[in-house]
Amino acid sequence: MKLLSPTELEGALRDIGARRYHRLHRFHTLLHGGKCTKGQVQAWALNRYYYQAMIPIKDASLIARCEDPAIRREWRSRLVDHDGERDGDGGIARWLKLTDGLGLDRDLVTSLRAILPGTRFAVDAYVRFVREKTLLEAIASSLTEMFSPAIISERMAGMLANYSFVTRDTLAYFDKRPPQAARDADFALNYVKHNARTAEQQQAVLGALEFKCSVLWAMLDALYHAYVDPKQVPPGAFVPNDQ
Amino acid sequence: MKLLSPTELEGALRDIGARRYHRLHRFHTLLHGGKCTKGQVQAWALNRYYYQAMIPIKDASLIARCEDPAIRREWRSRLVDHDGERDGDGGIARWLKLTDGLGLDRDLVTSLRAILPGTRFAVDAYVRFVREKTLLEAIASSLTEMFSPAIISERMAGMLANYSFVTRDTLAYFDKRPPQAARDADFALNYVKHNARTAEQQQAVLGALEFKCSVLWAMLDALYHAYVDPKQVPPGAFVPNDQ
Repeated sequence: MKLLSPTELEGALRDIGARRYHRLHRFHTLLHGGKCTKGQVQAWALNRYYYQAMIPIKDASLIARCEDPAIRREWRSRLVDHDGERDGDGGIARWLKLTDGLGLDRDLVTSLRAILPGTRFAVDAYVRFVREKTLLEAIASSLTEMFSPAIISERMAGMLANYSFVTRDTLAYFDKRPPQAARDADFALNYVKHNARTAEQQQAVLGALEFKCSVLWAMLDALYHAYVDPKQVPPGAFVPNDQ
Repeated sequence: MKLLSPTELEGALRDIGARRYHRLHRFHTLLHGGKCTKGQVQAWALNRYYYQAMIPIKDASLIARCEDPAIRREWRSRLVDHDGERDGDGGIARWLKLTDGLGLDRDLVTSLRAILPGTRFAVDAYVRFVREKTLLEAIASSLTEMFSPAIISERMAGMLANYSFVTRDTLAYFDKRPPQAARDADFALNYVKHNARTAEQQQAVLGALEFKCSVLWAMLDALYHAYVDPKQVPPGAFVPNDQ
């Protein structure tokens, strides 16, 4: 392990994104390319809801570990983004517009009872990681945001072009995210470039991003195996009408 | 144990405040009555800084346990109150105006190295309580806010009247707190009145408030024994110039 310059560290992080970010997962290729059935799109949105719902809990867990008010204040904006200022506002509420638009029952979605075990395990592992690893690793695990603006524009274009049951309005969540994600990623990237000062810390940062990529990847693996091939839905999980 | 009506529960909570809140502690009698030396006032402000500094960490820990975005959103305002919107803003920064005004070195205060062990143990016990007990108990432990507007007005009047080294400007922290505390206490009281539905839950709520009163009380005990009587400062802790 050699000590990297901040620029080299950023390069290594971007390289992880290029190789491991879930944009490369075949489920996303299907989803964005219009090759999913409506049931598969529903399954994706319903499972991903659990991730969305846990994000503020993850972010508050991170704030609860910060001794520096400046970092807490910066990170607080993520709570605002996801929980909003009032009922019906914020990222979680906008995700529910998507599940509504896809014809999913809101109580089914928010009850979480139809999500795949693989979704639950992956998301819970992420929250646990942020609670238990170093603050540096917790912050670094958010760096998949560096890569999300690209996947979001790809997703919106692909889904609007390919699915008659998807409208601009139901995709409101994605309209809002790119500037928020870019701001958050800038802060976190800057933080890790300044605070990973030893080779060991830099490896921990790279490991945290790999871990987070594996969380997102595992969520799509679970969807693929349940709903695409070999289409064996685990007992108790959501079964689309068209499956 | 019998099941209380919400009004009876509120009455039992107010009764705990009347008997156990640190307004009754003899250190506060001295502090507010102008009977403290400047060194004792400094010791109080320096030790209490640790409590102030941990409050947003305590509150983020609570938010991190909430599955309901509405509660998270409500509780988020506490982070805003304490951390502010920018550097120099918020309750912690206003507490540092007080320690500045009392002539304490800011680095000494923020380093936390001169606080009493009793302060640290009591504050840490509070944070741990909020992280580990039920959400209902965590919320109930904030209910000392029900009693704080009274002590704050008493403190401001007493300190301004009695200490030449205290100005309205250095007490800016206390100017802001009463409306924030009243709003927060209303929310938390309403929450426990609606959510403590069994006799066991009500006893847990009452126990949480007793616990929190004991945290605040223990902090003043530590100050009293170190700086008032028998004035034996634990090794390593702050020693005033006048002691």
